Amino acid sequence: MQSGTILVSTVEYMELVDITDKIEKDIAKSKITDGVCVLFNPHTTAGLTINEGCDPAVRSDVIKALKKIVPFNISYQHLEGNSPSHVLASLVGSSLSLFVHNGRLQLGTWQKVFFCEFDGPRSRKIHWRFL
Amino acid sequence: MQSGTILVSTVEYMELVDITDKIEKDIAKSKITDGVCVLFNPHTTAGLTINEGCDPAVRSDVIKALKKIVPFNISYQHLEGNSPSHVLASLVGSSLSLFVHNGRLQLGTWQKVFFCEFDGPRSRKIHWRFL
Amino acid sequence: MQSGTILVSTVEYMELVDITDKIEKDIAKSKITDGVCVLFNPHTTAGLTINEGCDPAVRSDVIKALKKIVPFNISYQHLEGNSPSHVLASLVGSSLSLFVHNGRLQLGTWQKVFFCEFDGPRSRKIHWRFL
Repeated sequence: MQSGTILVSTVEYMELVDITDKIEKDIAKSKITDGVCVLFNPHTTAGLTINEGCDPAVRSDVIKALKKIVPFNISYQHLEGNSPSHVLASLVGSSLSLFVHNGRLQLGTWQKVFFCEFDGPRSRKIHWRFL
Repeated sequence: MQSGTILVSTVEYMELVDITDKIEKDIAKSKITDGVCVLFNPHTTAGLTINEGCDPAVRSDVIKALKKIVPFNISYQHLEGNSPSHVLASLVGSSLSLFVHNGRLQLGTWQKVFFCEFDGPRSRKIHWRFL
Repeated sequence: MQSGTILVSTVEYMELVDITDKIEKDIAKSKITDGVCVLFNPHTTAGLTINEGCDPAVRSDVIKALKKIVPFNISYQHLEGNSPSHVLASLVGSSLSLFVHNGRLQLGTWQKVFFCEFDGPRSRKIHWRFL
């Protein structure tokens, strides 16, 4: 089974980072042609998602909305103070399944794959395996 | 690897469409017996979910709640005006893994598979691959 | 293909139950070494997630936040009265893909796998398959 790890350095407290090119480069290097590429995020204050990558306003709008959706001013018990980040990790999810066809990701016209930073800036990694 | 595409025509702005029968028909045609069927939604204002399919009120309640959860009246930057739909796409998710046993989906008693339209009505498709 | 079922008895209305050890025991028994373990939750008022397992306050904070995020006081139609539980099932999701390396789950330092009870207490099960 082919597998690898992608590295991401985030610069904001919360942001979506487009990792599509990094995944496609790893797929090209691995000479993978057809199958399913599973991504796994090993961090508890981050996630993985697919969304529109054409207009950068979409990713900032998504972050703006997520900050409204998750309550920041309730009495959390976790002393590290980043419970909203943990909540977002569970809402967005930590694994993704992507289809590969002829050595390329089979994404929709507007789709890009994003690493979701919910407690940055940090150095992060994403593991992938090919089935 | 066996694969296919399911077509869905949605009729509402936001709705859950039961696609369980369409998936099972494709599985039957492909003579698939045991394994994992991965579904992938290539649209950025839609999603895939599993929920109760017996009482149609559950799917309308889910849509009603999602419309309350996502903010509609904040200053979004994306000019197309459908940022809440993109947010819901990331909250619900774009891929699902279903188990197949003896040629049938191995779902729970009340479970059905739903395509989630968050910016309809539109013509949509869902890709699947069998592992 | 190797597969199995894990049993969980929940004790609260809503809670996160750490099922990491149960999955690892099944993997050890199955003599699985390397690949992807897919988990599937067959219930419509429950989910599966990965989050921090070190400080138990994280899981209670996540439940506290989810109860704030989902509206409880809107006019739901589903007569069983547990629509907020169905909404949470779709937000958190019903399948997870975990990587296995050398017979162990390849999780991040702080990650544990949780069954999410959103309508307990109940007797629940989680199916898994190995790819």
